[in-house]
This record gives sequence, C-alpha cells and structure tokens, in this order.
Amino acid sequence: MNRITSLFNIKYPIIQAGMIWCSDWRLASAVSNAGGLGLIGSGSMTHDILREHIRKCKNATNKPFGVNIPLLFSEADEFIKIVVEEDVPVVFTSAGNPAKWTSYLKEHGIKVVHVVSNVKFAKKAEDSGVDAIVAEGFEAGGHNGREETTTLVLIPMVKEVVSIPIIAAGGIATGRGMMAAMALGAEGVQIGSRFVASDESSAHLLFKQRIIEAKDGDTQLILKKIVPVRLIKNKFFKEVEEKENAGSSLIELSELLGTGRARKGMFEGDADEGELEIGQISGLIHEIKPAAEIIDEIVSEYHRIKTELEGIDF
Amino acid sequence: MNRITSLFNIKYPIIQAGMIWCSDWRLASAVSNAGGLGLIGSGSMTHDILREHIRKCKNATNKPFGVNIPLLFSEADEFIKIVVEEDVPVVFTSAGNPAKWTSYLKEHGIKVVHVVSNVKFAKKAEDSGVDAIVAEGFEAGGHNGREETTTLVLIPMVKEVVSIPIIAAGGIATGRGMMAAMALGAEGVQIGSRFVASDESSAHLLFKQRIIEAKDGDTQLILKKIVPVRLIKNKFFKEVEEKENAGSSLIELSELLGTGRARKGMFEGDADEGELEIGQISGLIHEIKPAAEIIDEIVSEYHRIKTELEGIDF
Repeated sequence: MNRITSLFNIKYPIIQAGMIWCSDWRLASAVSNAGGLGLIGSGSMTHDILREHIRKCKNATNKPFGVNIPLLFSEADEFIKIVVEEDVPVVFTSAGNPAKWTSYLKEHGIKVVHVVSNVKFAKKAEDSGVDAIVAEGFEAGGHNGREETTTLVLIPMVKEVVSIPIIAAGGIATGRGMMAAMALGAEGVQIGSRFVASDESSAHLLFKQRIIEAKDGDTQLILKKIVPVRLIKNKFFKEVEEKENAGSSLIELSELLGTGRARKGMFEGDADEGELEIGQISGLIHEIKPAAEIIDEIVSEYHRIKTELEGIDF
Repeated sequence: MNRITSLFNIKYPIIQAGMIWCSDWRLASAVSNAGGLGLIGSGSMTHDILREHIRKCKNATNKPFGVNIPLLFSEADEFIKIVVEEDVPVVFTSAGNPAKWTSYLKEHGIKVVHVVSNVKFAKKAEDSGVDAIVAEGFEAGGHNGREETTTLVLIPMVKEVVSIPIIAAGGIATGRGMMAAMALGAEGVQIGSRFVASDESSAHLLFKQRIIEAKDGDTQLILKKIVPVRLIKNKFFKEVEEKENAGSSLIELSELLGTGRARKGMFEGDADEGELEIGQISGLIHEIKPAAEIIDEIVSEYHRIKTELEGIDF
C-alpha cells in the first residue's frame, strides 16, 4: 500500500500508459485484471470508438481502469464528456493545460492525473488540483519534453516542488526499473513500451517484433522543431532526419509527416514507411508476452531486488 | 562491502569522476579521505602538472586514489608511463580503445576501469580485461555517447552482457540517485557534477555558482556532429547552437570552439564566453560544500531511502 495504490484502489502501483494505436480495451482490462491500472489510449480514437472501448473494458474487468486524453487533441473536449457519461473512474491528461478540465472531472468523482516532463508544469499541474503527476523522462517513447530531462534526474527534481504523489515514466520496463523509480521518490510507475510488446496490445505484430529486436541506440528523439518525438530509427525516421539536417522548413517537414504515419507504422505494421513510437527501454524487451505475465515478472523482480539491496551494507 | 569497495579497498562505492579543470589533487584526496575513491582528472594537465598532483595527492591521503586518462588525449601514452612510475593504484580510462593499455597497467598492479556509454563498448572493455566498467548515461556532463542512452536504461542493458562490476554515472548526486543505480544493477556510482560544486574542486567559483543556480533544462547536449558534449546553455553555448542550426561546417564549428574554451569557462570563470561542462543533475545541486560533507549526505540519504523502501509493501 502506498498513496498510488490507495488513490486508484489497485494492488500494484503499476500503470500501463495510454498509448495511441497500442492500448485499447483488451490491454487496459488485462492490466487492470492483473492488479495494475490499465489505460485506454484515446488519442487515436473517434468518439464512437472510445465509447465502445470504455464499455468493452467495463465488461472485461470489474477493477478500476482509466482513459488517457491528450488535451491538445481536437476531440479532447468531446472525450471529456464521454468519460464523465460513461463513469470512467480515472483520467490521465497529457499535452495541454490541466487547469482546463481538472475541476470538472473531479466534480464528477473522477481521479485525475496529468503527465509532465518538466518541473514547472509539475507545479502547475499540482496547482490545478490533480491527484497525482506522471513525470516522464527523455527516454520515453513518443512525444516528449523539450528540456530532455531524463527520468533519473526529473523525478527527484519534481519531488522537490510537489507534495502530491509522483508516477515515474520513461525507461521503466522491469522490477529493477520500478525499484529505481521508487528510490528516486516516485510512488508508482507508468510503463508503456513493455506493454506495447504484450499479447493484448493492439499494436501490429510487425511493430511488436521491431520492439523486441531493438537494441541500444535504435530509437532517437527527433522533430525537435515541431514537437519532439522518440521513434525507432527506420526508413521513415531517416528521411525525416535527412530533411531536418538539411534545414528543411516546418512546412516541408509537416508535409513529409503527412497524416496517418503513426497508424501506418504502429497499427498497420508498415515498419519502413510508418512512424514507430517507442522508448529507449525497448532494447531491454526481448519477448512478446501476456500483460499479466509482464506484471508478475515486474513484481517478482522488484521483490528480489529489494531483498538484494537489503543485503548490501557499507 | 561489495565488489566495488573490495576492488578499490574503499569504504563507500562512491567514485568522484576525474574531470578536466575541476578535479586536481585537492578534490581527489578529500574524497578518498572521506571513504570514496577520488580521481585526478589528467585531461587538462601537462606531464609535470600531473606528476606534481599525483605526488601531492599521495601526501594528502594514505587511502587509494586514481587518475582518469582520456585515451584519445595527445598525452595519453606519456600519462600511462607516469601513473606506472608514480605507483598510482587505480586508473580510469575513457574516450579511446581500452585494449591498448589495460594489460600493461594491470601487469604493473594497477586496477583499471574503462568508461563507456553503450552496450557494445561495455562488452569490448570487459574483453580487454578491465576490472570494472563505468556506464555513463545521456544526462552526464561533458563528453557523451552518440546513442543518447540514459543511465536508467543503460545500466540494466550493460548488465545483460558483462559480468564484471558496473559503476553507474550520469544523473547521480544524491543518496536517492545512488540507491536507484544500485537497484538497476550497478555496484558503485561515479559522481561528477556534485563534486564540481565542492569546496575542494579546482573549478572557478563563478562556475560553481552557475551550477548551484542551474535548473531543469539549463544544460543541453550539443556538437553532435563533432563530439557530443553537455554544457550549460550560456552565451557561448547559444553561439554554437545558432551555428549548428544554420548548418555550419565542421571547420566553422571548430573555429568557433577554438582552443581553451573549457579552461576559460570552468577554470577561469568566464561564464559567458567559456565552455561549462556539467550534468543535468546540476538542477538538484543547491549548495557548495566540502567533499566529505557531500559524501556523508549521500551515504545518510542512501540509508534513509533503504529503510523507506523496506517499509513499502504490495
């Protein structure tokens, strides 16, 4: 028991990140059933699809689950209405101003968590009344902060300025990583990449396979002039990188990106032409597994490492 | 006791990084006297100065200490001779091929550690016969790896491929950071930035003050086309950044860098025109202190966090 397990009424302080194209009701319910908190990633959904997935998730688990809503997403306001109507117990907001919807969600009995990547926005999120903060470091997959602060550095810095519980994200896929996060002052972990490579993830099998093949140095943060995003360095990545290095304009870059690159890569499995958002920690992920097994392994390793650390003395 | 304290015959598995312009005999001996392993940073020294500092360090402590030698440094071969002649007990090599001097140093009874920033070179270093590895993450100050792998991700990845002990570096300045590193599988920590902001560091006081004023996002990795280096974002940094963004040639960048920028910034205290190499963790460093006090605080916090973690159960 700690403040995170109490807040969400879950067994383990392990949150599965709500990710576009990868985390629908199947993954969210599998994680919640296994004692963590599963999140539906709404950022790649339409209204109808989101409502359908929330309902399916409720049918698949009687445990708490949540929805991640990127606030800058054009559909965000509509999604807020849907989660209230559908009695979703937890909402994680990201990419936007938490002051906009936090009070409204909390008035409807929803626990609210906001994702930040720097100290200033951690404080702002606390001031807006959220129940907890996800502090996400540079090593995380997908969209990322401009400061490039790593999880190891970010967590204790955020802890200096906020008193609400912190959930560490970025670079965590194992019990060791979880123990490191707790040592830094986090009270829970948000895990993305490891769950993308799960049986229940809606990511395309070819994307999952690229994750388990990925090694040290196979992802990189790119598009810093638009919005920094960590991708696998595939053919598409290299085209974007070349254009960036050649000093291409934002318009040229946006045209190359076009629309649907994330769907193409992560959901349709076009590993060359698509955008593959994943974290550095993919280099430590070697097998596609059921979500429940992933959670069991993380928890077992956490306890094993705890005992090991107790035995070291100086 | 663990493999790192045994290897060096020290009380705490805390190594003070050997840093140019910042770590001469005063800092190294202060750290060794306080139970850690102090390292003289030879990369900014001449032969005579290095020999003088080794001798002064021996006079100032009867504890083990070491010298850091960047192998690509033009004087490296001469420095290897000096450390052997002067019976230095420990050598940390970096920036170069560990196969070149490791056997020679070990034949002379010297413990050898090599610094790496990726998995491939960790394995190469082990194969070359070094006693331990420093695995240094993206958040570290000064020169840095091209993969941009953070400490949180790098340590467990390196642990998968080597069996010799790992010393974690990059982003560590506190007992929390040390506990995180140990949880990840490191058996010791190398700490740089925190010791630059110590009384005994030879860094200029104005540089030390910039460190304690630094916040989240105030350092950045730059010069990726030449050799990546993490600097404080001062006036000089911004000039380099502008030239990089404008697509300047390597020759133009090298001319702007010139020579002596690091000395000017870190040793002479020109915080505008000089190069200020420091880690992201500077945002968590708030006071200039004696090295012994820094070590005491790290060790106390480590033990406090250990007790805290023992109390969390799920």
